[in-house]
Amino acid sequence: MALRMSTLFLRTLREDPADAEVPSHRLLVRAGYIRRVSPGIYTWLPLGLRVLRKVETIVREEMDEIGAQELLFPALLPKEPFEASGRWTEYGPNIFRLQDRKGADYLLGPTHEEMFTLAVKDMYSSYKDLPLAIYQIQTKYRDEARPRAGVLRGREFVMKDSYSFDLDAAGLDKAYQLHRDAYIRIFDRLGFHYVIVQAMAGAMGGSKSEEFLATAENGEDTYVRCPNCGYAANVEAVRVPVPDPVPYADVPAAHVEATPDTPTIETLVAHLNAHFPREDRPWAAGDTLKNVIVTLVHPDGTREPLAIGVPGDREIDEKRLGAQVDPAAVEAFEEKDFAANPALVKGYIGPGALGSESASKIRYLLDPRVAEGTRWVTGADESGKHVIDLVAGRDFTADGTIEAADVRPGDACPSCGHGLESARGIEMGHIFQLGTKYAEALDLKVLDQNGKLQTVVMGSYGVGVSRAVACVAEGNHDELGLRWPREISPVDVHVVATGKDVTRDPEVFTKSEEITRALEAAGLSVLYDDRQKVSPGVKFKDSELIGVPTIVVVGKSLEHGVVEIKDRATGERREVPVQDVVSEVVREVSGAGVPGSAS
Amino acid sequence: MALRMSTLFLRTLREDPADAEVPSHRLLVRAGYIRRVSPGIYTWLPLGLRVLRKVETIVREEMDEIGAQELLFPALLPKEPFEASGRWTEYGPNIFRLQDRKGADYLLGPTHEEMFTLAVKDMYSSYKDLPLAIYQIQTKYRDEARPRAGVLRGREFVMKDSYSFDLDAAGLDKAYQLHRDAYIRIFDRLGFHYVIVQAMAGAMGGSKSEEFLATAENGEDTYVRCPNCGYAANVEAVRVPVPDPVPYADVPAAHVEATPDTPTIETLVAHLNAHFPREDRPWAAGDTLKNVIVTLVHPDGTREPLAIGVPGDREIDEKRLGAQVDPAAVEAFEEKDFAANPALVKGYIGPGALGSESASKIRYLLDPRVAEGTRWVTGADESGKHVIDLVAGRDFTADGTIEAADVRPGDACPSCGHGLESARGIEMGHIFQLGTKYAEALDLKVLDQNGKLQTVVMGSYGVGVSRAVACVAEGNHDELGLRWPREISPVDVHVVATGKDVTRDPEVFTKSEEITRALEAAGLSVLYDDRQKVSPGVKFKDSELIGVPTIVVVGKSLEHGVVEIKDRATGERREVPVQDVVSEVVREVSGAGVPGSAS
Repeated sequence: MALRMSTLFLRTLREDPADAEVPSHRLLVRAGYIRRVSPGIYTWLPLGLRVLRKVETIVREEMDEIGAQELLFPALLPKEPFEASGRWTEYGPNIFRLQDRKGADYLLGPTHEEMFTLAVKDMYSSYKDLPLAIYQIQTKYRDEARPRAGVLRGREFVMKDSYSFDLDAAGLDKAYQLHRDAYIRIFDRLGFHYVIVQAMAGAMGGSKSEEFLATAENGEDTYVRCPNCGYAANVEAVRVPVPDPVPYADVPAAHVEATPDTPTIETLVAHLNAHFPREDRPWAAGDTLKNVIVTLVHPDGTREPLAIGVPGDREIDEKRLGAQVDPAAVEAFEEKDFAANPALVKGYIGPGALGSESASKIRYLLDPRVAEGTRWVTGADESGKHVIDLVAGRDFTADGTIEAADVRPGDACPSCGHGLESARGIEMGHIFQLGTKYAEALDLKVLDQNGKLQTVVMGSYGVGVSRAVACVAEGNHDELGLRWPREISPVDVHVVATGKDVTRDPEVFTKSEEITRALEAAGLSVLYDDRQKVSPGVKFKDSELIGVPTIVVVGKSLEHGVVEIKDRATGERREVPVQDVVSEVVREVSGAGVPGSAS
Repeated sequence: MALRMSTLFLRTLREDPADAEVPSHRLLVRAGYIRRVSPGIYTWLPLGLRVLRKVETIVREEMDEIGAQELLFPALLPKEPFEASGRWTEYGPNIFRLQDRKGADYLLGPTHEEMFTLAVKDMYSSYKDLPLAIYQIQTKYRDEARPRAGVLRGREFVMKDSYSFDLDAAGLDKAYQLHRDAYIRIFDRLGFHYVIVQAMAGAMGGSKSEEFLATAENGEDTYVRCPNCGYAANVEAVRVPVPDPVPYADVPAAHVEATPDTPTIETLVAHLNAHFPREDRPWAAGDTLKNVIVTLVHPDGTREPLAIGVPGDREIDEKRLGAQVDPAAVEAFEEKDFAANPALVKGYIGPGALGSESASKIRYLLDPRVAEGTRWVTGADESGKHVIDLVAGRDFTADGTIEAADVRPGDACPSCGHGLESARGIEMGHIFQLGTKYAEALDLKVLDQNGKLQTVVMGSYGVGVSRAVACVAEGNHDELGLRWPREISPVDVHVVATGKDVTRDPEVFTKSEEITRALEAAGLSVLYDDRQKVSPGVKFKDSELIGVPTIVVVGKSLEHGVVEIKDRATGERREVPVQDVVSEVVREVSGAGVPGSAS
């Protein structure tokens, strides 16, 4: 049955909602697709629910196609499995926790690794049962610190999560590739531009990991790409090419110099150029080694200082650092922490005071650029003094390296060396070789061909389903409203009767009704604007806002036996004889391969 | 694509789960439809999810048919609307409550009256917008004190809830009738026996209310029915026919008599017969008036004693009392309460010590059977003494009546007077004229034709969707397993290849595969037992346990060019020529009107 604007539970709004930061949020609310209940918590109104279900259908079809089996876990989950995996504490304030009437602890599932793992453990015991891929499309919960942009980053949201279970890495690779291919088909069908980027593999057990990012100016995720070789990676995952060791035989011995009042890189560089000028080129920030100290807060609550040495022209990137130290959180190293570590001279900290072998015992990690043989100016651990010609490997070493410095456009591509470009996107999918992390934590083993217990190897694959609705809207709109791709448009066609009312313009309404029925008989879904006493201008505005790809306008031109077909995406309009409208619309819609349109 | 037993995520169990009390729970777990995660919280495995989705589809189709529009509210809801309606406190420990990271209060929605009311208030403002019916099929939460019987009474469950919005009572009546008719179609299609019973209308604002109970021996709900006139009602809703006043001119004056050691009805009746024998008939419990005192705990926490007078041969029915005093809860009147009310002589409490006009000020309500002119023996408010020939209306009055006495088979039908029968059932649906309760609490008004604000009149209609799966299973099984009605069976047909393995019995597997494909090509969904090295006995047992209505057995009889078609419900088997099996199965399945089977 056609949706009729006269009765549809819908109110389009002329004004933007006050809290809307991005176009998709603004338009989905204004066009009556979603409605806010609480921060990050939304109601799906009839039009929105139709789009959401269409996204679900696409995801479901492609999962079924690769042999993944659908099931449905609860959203309300007991604490115990999450304690076993360590995530009960790791998640910190990011999950919703609650207790039942008996005081037992529960959480609202943010993802379901534990539950999938336990279900397989519960039911399977032999290599013969593998491979297995299972998935669900389910409502999930995260208590985001900053829910934003409508359903783009909500606290209650719909996700497809699937997991693969294999006996070995080769099986995992195959399952991973199957999912990767399915995701490509899903995102192609959803109709947005996206890029597949390398992503961080987890701290434990994981190996390969890629994200599907929808390219979007308003995206929260920054990624880099190489215009030369096609390399693309989430900033967290970018690996700095490790330079070859530099010969340092010619470098004079390190020497401490007075550099009064130079607690910042800027003041230091100015002082160096004024008092220790170099012949070949002036001193620059990149010649200095900056040592930054942060506090790691581990899931169990213990606090640990961490020192990071980066070239003075780089900043620490919070996201990259966070990904490296996950599951620990990063906090500032405060005045009281300095007070407790008298060996650290603020503004003049050098490698001498750092490292697990030093007096401070503070773990010290270096940016990979601080390679063996490189030569630096850095703090001398005395106020107003720096050491010059300090050579890495000769004069100091650290406890290891860390990828925490910011990535910048122009940085060398780790794959080909060409300069990288930076761009923004929205994470729409994530595929991830979990390895044995959860199988080990929850003891998921099966008997192999030789009757020996083997830990199962898992992959994890997610698609943001409700987020996809926002994401497609973000990539498909103009200043007038939404422009849905055919496959997830709430309906196939929008019929607009432009008459004043059925008494004044009976022919317009009768013919519109007739066309609506004929389109439905041809297998199309129709939104019919049958409202009385609503001006054509308002109806046009609504149709543009709502964004159905094909709009049929029935109006005065009926006198000449024609109606107008409008393409919402291109703005193109053409008149067609009224007797041809159904076949024309069917042709347009089926051109995009809409199921059922051929009937 | 056919489901293949060789890869299906399924393990059938030969043993009953330890916690299963009822057949549906036992069989749904054993046949691999559901799996327990926590008390009252279940995972839907692939077969179970298919059945759940089919129930959803039936409900959705019938809701759409009456013009109700689907939307989807969140499950995680802010406290404020529930405070406005009073339900935040009324629900007590029956809802899951939680706080977000900022300390704001939330709950997991048990039902969504408030959200629906607010959505309409938010979007609509005129009588022209009405009537409206909107619904959702959604996961809901109740922290049941005693979750039981698998998904029959869960703590996380799927419900369809719809609400109607009308300008007046006539509109509500119409919406109510539309829903009632739709529910009849839904429950007919689901294929179980049910009865529509009168139910309690709420304490505030509601009027008409009916429940759809699936008849089930294990049902938690008791209802009564009249074999004469067809009257049926939930016990809570049964109204005792109020007797006509009895003439009492002949009754002597009430007289207090010594009845030592008669604190119970039994001892009192024995004493009366021994010391005060009657000529016409012996004293019986029904001649005495029993006064029971309970404590009401109101939602705001205040406690109030309540006295109830019932004939001595009746007990107070907790459910009936609970429904009458809702939203207050009932607790015992304890020793310390007696101590605080010295006028109450335990075992000898009479009307003299009760009532808001009495010294105790305890509210006193009478069973309707204690009608004007009826004659009683009751406590004399002195230890060891009772009063005889006490006449209601002449010698005592109360603050009102209450329907709290138990209902028994043989009680008079309130409609025709015939003896009632008692039966048990499972509440599957509830339709309810809410009236203006929520519209008033949340200020939902629209302008009427005269430009005046009118409070909207609401109806509320629920179907237990996940419960329906259990309920149908409860009504459709035998000792071997489940017996699904066609319309919600996980698949249309189950093909069993009884060969040992594909090397030993290639013909069996090739032919089974061929039949499976042909059935699918004919539009049917198939579960194909393609397992190798699994005995026919195990395969038969599994097919009976899983309960698909039509089973095709491909085995040795292939030599004679025939396969067997088995009807799971009747147990009937017949051999058909292998070339006819597809058309035969299609005919059987489509005989039940399965969509798509005609193609």
